[in-house]
Amino acid sequence: MPVGTVKYYLREGLLPAGTPTSATQAQYGEEHVERLALIRVLVGTGGLTVAAARAALQMIDAPAPSIHEVIGTAHQAIGPEVTAEPEALDRARSLVEAQGWQVACDSPALAQLAAALDACDAVGIPGMERLVGRYAAVAEQLAAFDVAAVPTTSPADAVRFVVAGTVLLEPLLLALRRLAQQDASFRRFEGPDVTPG
Amino acid sequence: MPVGTVKYYLREGLLPAGTPTSATQAQYGEEHVERLALIRVLVGTGGLTVAAARAALQMIDAPAPSIHEVIGTAHQAIGPEVTAEPEALDRARSLVEAQGWQVACDSPALAQLAAALDACDAVGIPGMERLVGRYAAVAEQLAAFDVAAVPTTSPADAVRFVVAGTVLLEPLLLALRRLAQQDASFRRFEGPDVTPG
Repeated sequence: MPVGTVKYYLREGLLPAGTPTSATQAQYGEEHVERLALIRVLVGTGGLTVAAARAALQMIDAPAPSIHEVIGTAHQAIGPEVTAEPEALDRARSLVEAQGWQVACDSPALAQLAAALDACDAVGIPGMERLVGRYAAVAEQLAAFDVAAVPTTSPADAVRFVVAGTVLLEPLLLALRRLAQQDASFRRFEGPDVTPG
Repeated sequence: MPVGTVKYYLREGLLPAGTPTSATQAQYGEEHVERLALIRVLVGTGGLTVAAARAALQMIDAPAPSIHEVIGTAHQAIGPEVTAEPEALDRARSLVEAQGWQVACDSPALAQLAAALDACDAVGIPGMERLVGRYAAVAEQLAAFDVAAVPTTSPADAVRFVVAGTVLLEPLLLALRRLAQQDASFRRFEGPDVTPG
């Protein structure tokens, strides 16, 4: 990693200062190396802005005692920031209610859902209602895995998992979905015809 | 939509020219309005760059006869462009093979998977192997819905669905996952204690 990048992260408050060894030099320890790896991942693969990464790191540095609160705050900090019309938000809330999900009524994920539903309508995706129901059922399965995997060893471990899990498991999920789509389309459209009987 | 934006899309080749009615004016029809809605959604909610949106629109305008090919091309065109180390790519390929998935060995989704796995390792997500297996199983379910929903009425309908489905169902899925996580964490960490017996 270039020195300029490290200085930039120091200036932006993502990385704590090292121990000064002279007027112009400082020593950095193991925890700095770990922190740099984390920043790199949040800003790189995670695609976070520096501001969002700072917010995520602050949650890790001062873990809130309530994991449930941490999940909400992580979703808020990590973005993306999406704006949605009031009617679109109402529609997203109805969908969440129909699923029986307990969600804070100002959760930014509601605006993300509203914008995504509006966008699908704008281009007209056939069979949308059915797809949404199936996607919601799958989202429930994923959430059950995620939440069961949150370590309860310490609030710090839990927060670290939630932040990293939110930022990094999203690209993982999307990559796996695309690969599975390629396989499914190969089987449906290119595979050998298997006529039963 | 501001006139400047429309002119920009015309210049960038996303929107076909209208019918000239004088030296400085042109008439735009219903299909232009539809196309503008599609561009808006791809660049807005879909988060595509103008170059990626152009590639996506070109696929819609000249639909390839093989849907399977279209899915691969859509994943390539839409991005994000991710680079991964050869060892990381090998690991992603092994994982795909272990799932029994038929995937082009140069699929960009392999690099996305490789980068996501590397990033998870770099920050250390406990129980990662188990989570990846569960995520892959869920990705298979999603892909089965997606591919079954591809309309076979015409190649143009199919391509439109694949492009819009790839770009728009991803933010939908992520929003639903976050909302379901909030619900699951509420039940695990905040809900009333239910002690069986």
